[in-house]
Amino acid sequence: MSEFYAPETPDRVKNATGLHLITALTPNGRKAHIYLEELKDAYGLACTISLIDLDTEEQKKPWFLRLNPNGRIPLLIDNTTTPHPHPVMESSAILLYLFHTVDRAHQFGYADPLLQSQVLQWTVFWAASGQPVQGQWNSFRRSGGRGRGRFHDELLRVYHVLDAHLAGRYRYTARSRARESLAGPGAGKYMYNVHTLADIHAWAWVRNLRGVGLEEGELARGALGEGYDEVVHPELVVGT
Amino acid sequence: MSEFYAPETPDRVKNATGLHLITALTPNGRKAHIYLEELKDAYGLACTISLIDLDTEEQKKPWFLRLNPNGRIPLLIDNTTTPHPHPVMESSAILLYLFHTVDRAHQFGYADPLLQSQVLQWTVFWAASGQPVQGQWNSFRRSGGRGRGRFHDELLRVYHVLDAHLAGRYRYTARSRARESLAGPGAGKYMYNVHTLADIHAWAWVRNLRGVGLEEGELARGALGEGYDEVVHPELVVGT
Repeated sequence: MSEFYAPETPDRVKNATGLHLITALTPNGRKAHIYLEELKDAYGLACTISLIDLDTEEQKKPWFLRLNPNGRIPLLIDNTTTPHPHPVMESSAILLYLFHTVDRAHQFGYADPLLQSQVLQWTVFWAASGQPVQGQWNSFRRSGGRGRGRFHDELLRVYHVLDAHLAGRYRYTARSRARESLAGPGAGKYMYNVHTLADIHAWAWVRNLRGVGLEEGELARGALGEGYDEVVHPELVVGT
Repeated sequence: MSEFYAPETPDRVKNATGLHLITALTPNGRKAHIYLEELKDAYGLACTISLIDLDTEEQKKPWFLRLNPNGRIPLLIDNTTTPHPHPVMESSAILLYLFHTVDRAHQFGYADPLLQSQVLQWTVFWAASGQPVQGQWNSFRRSGGRGRGRFHDELLRVYHVLDAHLAGRYRYTARSRARESLAGPGAGKYMYNVHTLADIHAWAWVRNLRGVGLEEGELARGALGEGYDEVVHPELVVGT
């Protein structure tokens, strides 16, 4: 254990037992925190949290890089594993780790591998296509530079994909039926009044939709190519 | 089955049995194809492939959007599932689907959940932090616009993270020992002369390193903050 944490690791991290989340109030930080809180409610989970001060770049210091060479939050450390604690970087990987190790009743996913494959697909979709674009748009929209149009159009496209999927526009299953959750059969897990981790994952970013600087009109208008022409659903917010 | 595929779906797709990959010669398309070919060699897998013509935007047509509302390749369709075929979008999700359904001997990953968690983390790292940045850099480097410096610096940072990890610079395990694979104990799976799907995943992009327009000098120089100062390993290519 003495070799696992660097000597300068904060005591709060070094002395943690159970699951310990190092996070901050960013969309990716929030999603890990949200799922952890849901699991605490559902399973009485033992976990603690450290908030990182992003202004002082604590996450770029050697003690942190030793745990996550990418120097980013959130970072989950599972102190229950042997022979040493197990660190998990990347918010998508954290949600999936929590699902497989804690969420034994599959409250936020599925035991069925094909349904869980849908959860994974929509989680990766948002991680690879959604959040990087929304993050860049947040930066470029203020600069007014050449990249502005590029990220505006791509973010709009991504939201129309979410919308088309939730509206039941394309999928072979429940084709014309609106969905309440990104993954799962029919309308998803809404009947249980819970959603999957794919929804928590996207929601942490989609919740900022009204403040992100896209216009209502363009969100409602599906003018992004042949396939999207009939998308008229204005309800883009997944989760609650 | 008749409702699963749209009437205008190409016969080659509609009549496929076993696994069918719809792809193109892009980095994300290649990684799915590479893993599928490896699995064919290892397990005698029944699979077929369709190449999409990206110039005619076939992947934005309704028959394709019905299978993948994101309108992107690669797309894997598993025709062995019931009650209908199972489509898998997103290259990361495709690799993980193949791992769980085909790669029963765990040749490109691990049975141990903690080791497999490392595979997932490095897969997501590249999907969320690597490939979107390299993709934007490929576009902005030609334009010379305001976003150029931003994506240049971030791509360099991402490569230094890969490098630091492969050089064994930070991790609590095998700290000073170079690795041949992104995930797994010690030097990874190199002793078996194979790598994990996380390596296939990143390699499809990293193979373009010499043509991506970064300078040798800046790749070797770790001048991206306190934590990266001592990174001098020039060997950035994972897998081969």
